[in-house]
Amino acid sequence: MIADELLAALANPDDGEVERLDTWWRANNYLTVGQIYLQGNPLLREPLAPEHIKPRLLGHWGTSPGLSLIYAHVSRLISRTGQQAIYLAGPGHGGPALVAAGYLEGTYSEIYPDVSLDEAGVLRLFRQFSSPGGIPSHVSVTTPGSIHEGGELGYVLVHAFGSVMDNPDLLAVAVVGDGEAETGPLEGSWKGVSFLNPAHDGAVLPILHLNGAKIAGPTVLARKDPAEVRSLFEGHGYDVLEVGGDDLPGMHHRFAATLADAYGRIRKIQAAARNGDWDGSRPRWPMIIMRTPKGWTGPEEVDGIRVTGTWRSHQVPLSGVRDNAEHLAILETWLRSYKPEELFDDSGAPVASIKDLAPDGDLRMSASPHANGGRITRDLDLPDYRDYAIDVNRPAEQRAESTRKLGELMRDIYTRNPDRFRLFCPDETNSNRLGAVFEVSDRGFMEAVTDDDVSISRDGRVMEVLSEHNCHGWLEGYTLTGRHGMFATYEAFAMVSASQTVQHGKWLQEAAHLPWRAKVPSLNVLLTSTAWRNDHNGFSHQGPGLIQVVLNQRGDVSRIYLPPDANCLLSVANHCFRSRSYVNLIVIDKQPQLQWLTMDQAIEHCARGAGIWDWAGTDDASSDPDIVLACAGDVVTMETVAAAQILKEKLPGFRVRVVNVVDLMSLTRPKDHPHGMSSTWFTELFTDSVDVVFAFHGYPGAIHQLVHGRPDADRFRVRGFVEEGTTTTPFDMTVRNRASRYHLVMDAINNAKRLPRGASDLKAWCERQLDKHAAYVVEHLEDMPEVRDWSLGDWAEQG
Amino acid sequence: MIADELLAALANPDDGEVERLDTWWRANNYLTVGQIYLQGNPLLREPLAPEHIKPRLLGHWGTSPGLSLIYAHVSRLISRTGQQAIYLAGPGHGGPALVAAGYLEGTYSEIYPDVSLDEAGVLRLFRQFSSPGGIPSHVSVTTPGSIHEGGELGYVLVHAFGSVMDNPDLLAVAVVGDGEAETGPLEGSWKGVSFLNPAHDGAVLPILHLNGAKIAGPTVLARKDPAEVRSLFEGHGYDVLEVGGDDLPGMHHRFAATLADAYGRIRKIQAAARNGDWDGSRPRWPMIIMRTPKGWTGPEEVDGIRVTGTWRSHQVPLSGVRDNAEHLAILETWLRSYKPEELFDDSGAPVASIKDLAPDGDLRMSASPHANGGRITRDLDLPDYRDYAIDVNRPAEQRAESTRKLGELMRDIYTRNPDRFRLFCPDETNSNRLGAVFEVSDRGFMEAVTDDDVSISRDGRVMEVLSEHNCHGWLEGYTLTGRHGMFATYEAFAMVSASQTVQHGKWLQEAAHLPWRAKVPSLNVLLTSTAWRNDHNGFSHQGPGLIQVVLNQRGDVSRIYLPPDANCLLSVANHCFRSRSYVNLIVIDKQPQLQWLTMDQAIEHCARGAGIWDWAGTDDASSDPDIVLACAGDVVTMETVAAAQILKEKLPGFRVRVVNVVDLMSLTRPKDHPHGMSSTWFTELFTDSVDVVFAFHGYPGAIHQLVHGRPDADRFRVRGFVEEGTTTTPFDMTVRNRASRYHLVMDAINNAKRLPRGASDLKAWCERQLDKHAAYVVEHLEDMPEVRDWSLGDWAEQG
Repeated sequence: MIADELLAALANPDDGEVERLDTWWRANNYLTVGQIYLQGNPLLREPLAPEHIKPRLLGHWGTSPGLSLIYAHVSRLISRTGQQAIYLAGPGHGGPALVAAGYLEGTYSEIYPDVSLDEAGVLRLFRQFSSPGGIPSHVSVTTPGSIHEGGELGYVLVHAFGSVMDNPDLLAVAVVGDGEAETGPLEGSWKGVSFLNPAHDGAVLPILHLNGAKIAGPTVLARKDPAEVRSLFEGHGYDVLEVGGDDLPGMHHRFAATLADAYGRIRKIQAAARNGDWDGSRPRWPMIIMRTPKGWTGPEEVDGIRVTGTWRSHQVPLSGVRDNAEHLAILETWLRSYKPEELFDDSGAPVASIKDLAPDGDLRMSASPHANGGRITRDLDLPDYRDYAIDVNRPAEQRAESTRKLGELMRDIYTRNPDRFRLFCPDETNSNRLGAVFEVSDRGFMEAVTDDDVSISRDGRVMEVLSEHNCHGWLEGYTLTGRHGMFATYEAFAMVSASQTVQHGKWLQEAAHLPWRAKVPSLNVLLTSTAWRNDHNGFSHQGPGLIQVVLNQRGDVSRIYLPPDANCLLSVANHCFRSRSYVNLIVIDKQPQLQWLTMDQAIEHCARGAGIWDWAGTDDASSDPDIVLACAGDVVTMETVAAAQILKEKLPGFRVRVVNVVDLMSLTRPKDHPHGMSSTWFTELFTDSVDVVFAFHGYPGAIHQLVHGRPDADRFRVRGFVEEGTTTTPFDMTVRNRASRYHLVMDAINNAKRLPRGASDLKAWCERQLDKHAAYVVEHLEDMPEVRDWSLGDWAEQG
Repeated sequence: MIADELLAALANPDDGEVERLDTWWRANNYLTVGQIYLQGNPLLREPLAPEHIKPRLLGHWGTSPGLSLIYAHVSRLISRTGQQAIYLAGPGHGGPALVAAGYLEGTYSEIYPDVSLDEAGVLRLFRQFSSPGGIPSHVSVTTPGSIHEGGELGYVLVHAFGSVMDNPDLLAVAVVGDGEAETGPLEGSWKGVSFLNPAHDGAVLPILHLNGAKIAGPTVLARKDPAEVRSLFEGHGYDVLEVGGDDLPGMHHRFAATLADAYGRIRKIQAAARNGDWDGSRPRWPMIIMRTPKGWTGPEEVDGIRVTGTWRSHQVPLSGVRDNAEHLAILETWLRSYKPEELFDDSGAPVASIKDLAPDGDLRMSASPHANGGRITRDLDLPDYRDYAIDVNRPAEQRAESTRKLGELMRDIYTRNPDRFRLFCPDETNSNRLGAVFEVSDRGFMEAVTDDDVSISRDGRVMEVLSEHNCHGWLEGYTLTGRHGMFATYEAFAMVSASQTVQHGKWLQEAAHLPWRAKVPSLNVLLTSTAWRNDHNGFSHQGPGLIQVVLNQRGDVSRIYLPPDANCLLSVANHCFRSRSYVNLIVIDKQPQLQWLTMDQAIEHCARGAGIWDWAGTDDASSDPDIVLACAGDVVTMETVAAAQILKEKLPGFRVRVVNVVDLMSLTRPKDHPHGMSSTWFTELFTDSVDVVFAFHGYPGAIHQLVHGRPDADRFRVRGFVEEGTTTTPFDMTVRNRASRYHLVMDAINNAKRLPRGASDLKAWCERQLDKHAAYVVEHLEDMPEVRDWSLGDWAEQG
């Protein structure tokens, strides 16, 4: 626990400390306003003139002074205590404040030497802001010390909670804007404290910054009775500390005291838990509600209209500065109110007292290795995935729930990596057949646990919460700070967090261009309970949309795998767990499914991304087949192999090649994606001219998109999920979506250039099978006989 | 206000009423269990035998008895008061309970005569449940009385709040499951009360059903200290009423009293507001927290393990019933505990007392026209959209913010339709240039309003909340109950609510197959602040992903429009506001943009979906051009026209055709989408064999997907957004994504089969322009000179 004397000192800064805090804050505010307005005269060493003003004024002032105040005070706390901390700016449009803070700490110039610690550097800092070729107006990947893009709102707390899991020494200071606080994902993320273990996790300090307004109007929380707001957050389980005002230096004293209070409570909770002095009840973690005026220290009024404290200060409080002498004068007064002459030395570098406030080296929040997690990432200690293989004597001989094998692999990853691996899943770990992890770790839960509960405890590290947003966001925070994990979810409901997948992908894509951002563990997403296997659910549960989302991410990030069986899944998962800075999407169902490949075959198949399944086809590889039957995805793979089997038996002499695709991006041209297969290999698989009937797990358009530019791409006839769904058997699903074995056979016959005798008979036979199926469905309505037993050879029985 | 005597009677049911309530409830529970288990012997008129049990047991029992209890009590309230009410089941997997309730009310048999009110009907009811060709295990479109699919969790309150806006006589009873309550969208939706006007809106009664567990473990809210839970919801602004237990008839008495209490408070709030007796402070609406055991009335223990009250009762509490005599006996005891012999008459129809409890006709919740909103939809009274036209003398002469015109149109729609039109927008109505609506309606807001606020009041009907989930969901609820509206949002952040777009699309797709579901107003989504025009924001704000999402919905639902200018936007919007049961996606930026077409031209262009812009090209239409330059989307249209202009000037004799596409789905084949253009028309536009350089607003793959199957689809070379973004000018964005005028010119030259002399010079010139641009960007870094002024002819200036 932290010594009482130190806490008392923290809570009661002396005059010198307050002076240093205020100097920092003034400098931070000055640099913020400068970024928004100035393109010359950066230190105001001459009178402000219209030509010093940027031609277009962009940026967000309103939230910035609050962000800077917090930054300064937390920096002081770090300097005094040595606490490791990172800063997450929920109101991320206060980008200039965070950029300025990193600049004052020196980190910015270390990373971007052009933005040097002198007058030229200040000018560069100003001119790059919100400019073409420069930096965005919000906190972004380019901002040192950030793991949280300030674009799409709502994820600051999920990132914060993820970052401190298994990170006992880290404090994540998470500022929540009152605009952002209205979003669903943010409101759903306060409950992170119900899952945070004070012994083996670090702490999150949420600071709800109620400045009253968003872009054009008031916020809900700012306009509620403060007692109601307090009640809300006490209801979420927090110890609510409130601070507010706009008097100076009063606010410095009060905020220092409040921050010290919160910090003391955190350390007390942690000390108790770590010293065995914890009764196991959920800690009541502190949070701070800070009320300061929006645009604080900016112009009170402009043109007779109140600005500070209103939504009018959200972006640029003073407009038309170049052409309006009065506005120009207001801006100059505003800028000079921070006394820039006291903030920068002759060279233009921040004065010594500012440097003194900043912590040293990696303790600076802008330089924290936790916010550049690749720097501290340790590889997973992975068991040999081949040890989990299913023994496959010959293809399609046995069925297994493939994801069970992945569960066993992850169980042993948990054991070997007790400090750096977690599975995140909305309440479906067992349902997804991943339950083996519970042999070695419970679910983590800090609310009451009863005797009837199973595999749930304070120490659990499997994260189940019925919120895709929390699961996804926690994993993002966890990986961005250098640890590994997986998010496993229902395929259709992966769209709930699709925007997070997009935004995290964008983060990784942008980070790939920044050499100082070390690569982090990949975001691994497992989709189960797929569109084709929602036997008792309905249409709402059938949607392969996330594939389409990841497909359009850039090749340096997007990876999509559709392993057809357990051994392929193991090989793919092993690869994903070793990889860095990708979005790895793995799609495979959880139900018992046919097993195709031995482990050795699976390894080779996955390494190549796609391959010919000789045993399934009838071509001899010495010449082109009559048709290529291709497939990607488990259920459609079974239909494809069954179609090939029908053709083999019923249409001898017709040469069928079966190609299975595991790595979806291998279909693209190498120039479009690093996994894109060479044109030679593509031709070896698909020929240059033979028609391809492609059965795809997802929307057919994806394949058309992927093979565009390949030789005669028009010859690809794709079957896939075409939004025909209901409560029915997987086989009936393939019929409804015209991707059944019979449809594939007919497609083959319809498209092949050479047909042996008997083809039209076979087509007629297929149509009869489909008629029989239709009759069968009506006759056996509600019997569900096919759900468990429909298999490869079942066409024969009905034939 | 409701009479005190009636309220007192409601709160104190006499013995006969309790008996009727309990009889209903037993029948509802019996039919629920029957749906999960029975395929024969539906009324237990013989001893239960293994062959009466379904071969596969599916369904969700745990939440069902609570849902039924509430249903019975609300039905009694309706019968006594005549209140119009609908029932939204958040824990929608309790489908069998709601299906059973609709059956007991007679509605089910009216809609589905096969499921008759007799023993055969009961059997059919049981057998169809969770069966192939039957109905899903959750509340779905097929469930009478539902506007809320019980699949993806989190939207019950947004649907409820949307349904009562401008619906003063409606009460939406919204049951929130404690699993669902963990989702972000749900947590973010309690704040609906901060936007609900007690005078002109109806009321939502949330009932939080804390039964303790979800699929495999406890829920957060159920395991928190009840005082904390109360604090949470008081913090959200509710008057919290709590009720719980499992004693009978005690629970009937207590629940009746609690419901009457809540109802009385609602009516009191409404009466005050409607009688001018309201001080304007936000009403403290009641909510109920109901604590009953999960799986209440089911088997307490199975195989010595506790089931009722635990997660084990979530789905099927008794498994292996066919093969396990003990389980079979437990099931029989369980079923007989409801005394089926008292519930059904000789024919198998519900006994009279059950029918007596149900309200009459349309007052039955399962028959409410509000839950089949098409029945009561009135067309919008639309002004003539041509009156808002921009006067276009010739193409590209003027710039305008096109969305301003839409704002003016919507302003007058507000005026003409004060009871059935709303705009929903996350805080960006003004930013999106739609602010004209504020001339006639404020933003609606029930929290404190201050003198500095603008266009915000109690009576406002423009809905701004910084939550895409709330905006989208409110609009869904609003349209499903028969009213009209639009959701306007930032293009990139439309992905936040993409899953709602998917799910609502699925609802509409499924409803299209159900004749009894009348068509409802379309879901109109306007995307502005597009990928190409995020001048000061960064990569995180650049994402055209929602197009891809809607693209894969079925043709009976999906509509995607990319109007290139204001007049086209007006024509498209007018069409969308008149349409029914579509998802209409409209994509257009808000910044000043060139105007191309007169109103008459726009009308014809939009009606055809795509057309040749003769004036922009150089082909004479009598023969095929050398190249087709096609485009869809505002910014890329400007680049395309500029490219054609360059070619016209610099490569005389090269015949260029410019095709603009407004209606994206017109590119598909008619068999794939009803808007798909005929092959004749397609060939007239794109020829059969000339190469097409297509500049697209979104991801290029979308076009490849859409034109698949068209003659020689490989000849389409698509440029679009390829995830190259940053803070920069729109022109630089087109350069980065290789879709600039210069890229298009080079593409044209590279792909045309016939090239006049000078083509290679022009290519070299284009490359020089791009080099100059690169140098220009570096030189003018941070000046942003291009943002405002880059236009059609600017290539000449730099040329």
